[in-house]
Amino acid sequence: MSAVLVRPARREDCGEIQRLIQALATFEKFPHGPKLTIEDLERDGFESSPAKFKCFVAEMPDESKTFCGYAMYFPIYSSWMGKGIRIEDLYVTPEFHGTGLGKRLFSLVAKEAYEGDFCRVEFTALGWNPAAGFYRHLGAENVTDSEERNVWRLYRNGMEKLLLHAK
Amino acid sequence: MSAVLVRPARREDCGEIQRLIQALATFEKFPHGPKLTIEDLERDGFESSPAKFKCFVAEMPDESKTFCGYAMYFPIYSSWMGKGIRIEDLYVTPEFHGTGLGKRLFSLVAKEAYEGDFCRVEFTALGWNPAAGFYRHLGAENVTDSEERNVWRLYRNGMEKLLLHAK
Repeated sequence: MSAVLVRPARREDCGEIQRLIQALATFEKFPHGPKLTIEDLERDGFESSPAKFKCFVAEMPDESKTFCGYAMYFPIYSSWMGKGIRIEDLYVTPEFHGTGLGKRLFSLVAKEAYEGDFCRVEFTALGWNPAAGFYRHLGAENVTDSEERNVWRLYRNGMEKLLLHAK
Repeated sequence: MSAVLVRPARREDCGEIQRLIQALATFEKFPHGPKLTIEDLERDGFESSPAKFKCFVAEMPDESKTFCGYAMYFPIYSSWMGKGIRIEDLYVTPEFHGTGLGKRLFSLVAKEAYEGDFCRVEFTALGWNPAAGFYRHLGAENVTDSEERNVWRLYRNGMEKLLLHAK
């Protein structure tokens, strides 16, 4: 098998990126999660300044140009240590598990973070996700375990209620 | 007591913001966490384009102009729902607990998120933090509890090791 090509995403990749976002959501048992259209991804990643996300994509080594993995990320900030990177999604299709592709994608983001003097790469994962061992092997620390750090979210219905009461 | 003034931060606020970042870290039992200088905060928040963070600050209602709270935040992105906001820090000094100041700071960020059509406001908190009840009261959901969503971090020493091995 010839090598998978991993490269930064371009605007015309958004259809394939959206397909893999759906595949990841289905794997995570939230098949109805994804709501973004290809046009949303084109606008947010390639027509906005600054781009709202960046992406590495992995292209199958054949003429299909089908994608077999991606890593979506964007800058974050720590009030202790300064700029960081968050990996929002990291996904490799099942047939490429065990080929080192996940590590290649992760390492490319880590390289960008390291060379750009970012303080850390952060991401979240579901507790049952079997990738936990893989993340640990790559040197990442589960800070929900070590610091009991919990993730909280306020969705739009929560914002609405809050702003009604705040009036 | 006259009302506390809550307003967007300006460049000259970075000294007071840094003081409160330290106060929050001390409260969180990580007093040696903060490493950023006032100049770092000035550069990242007020001399970079785009700014790496935004901030609301709460000013004491007296001539001291001392701060009694702040909320630091920045944009994030969801591959399912699009743009969001992360609150990195939300802090109110102990003497202002119970005055509604935390809710005012949180609501201002939620207002910006709601009116800007952001999909969610996300933040992390330590599991033992007594503010959990406050967050829930404001409408936020602990997705570490509900989805078993864990936070992972790769620090610079982890990046170094990974990139050495990836060579």
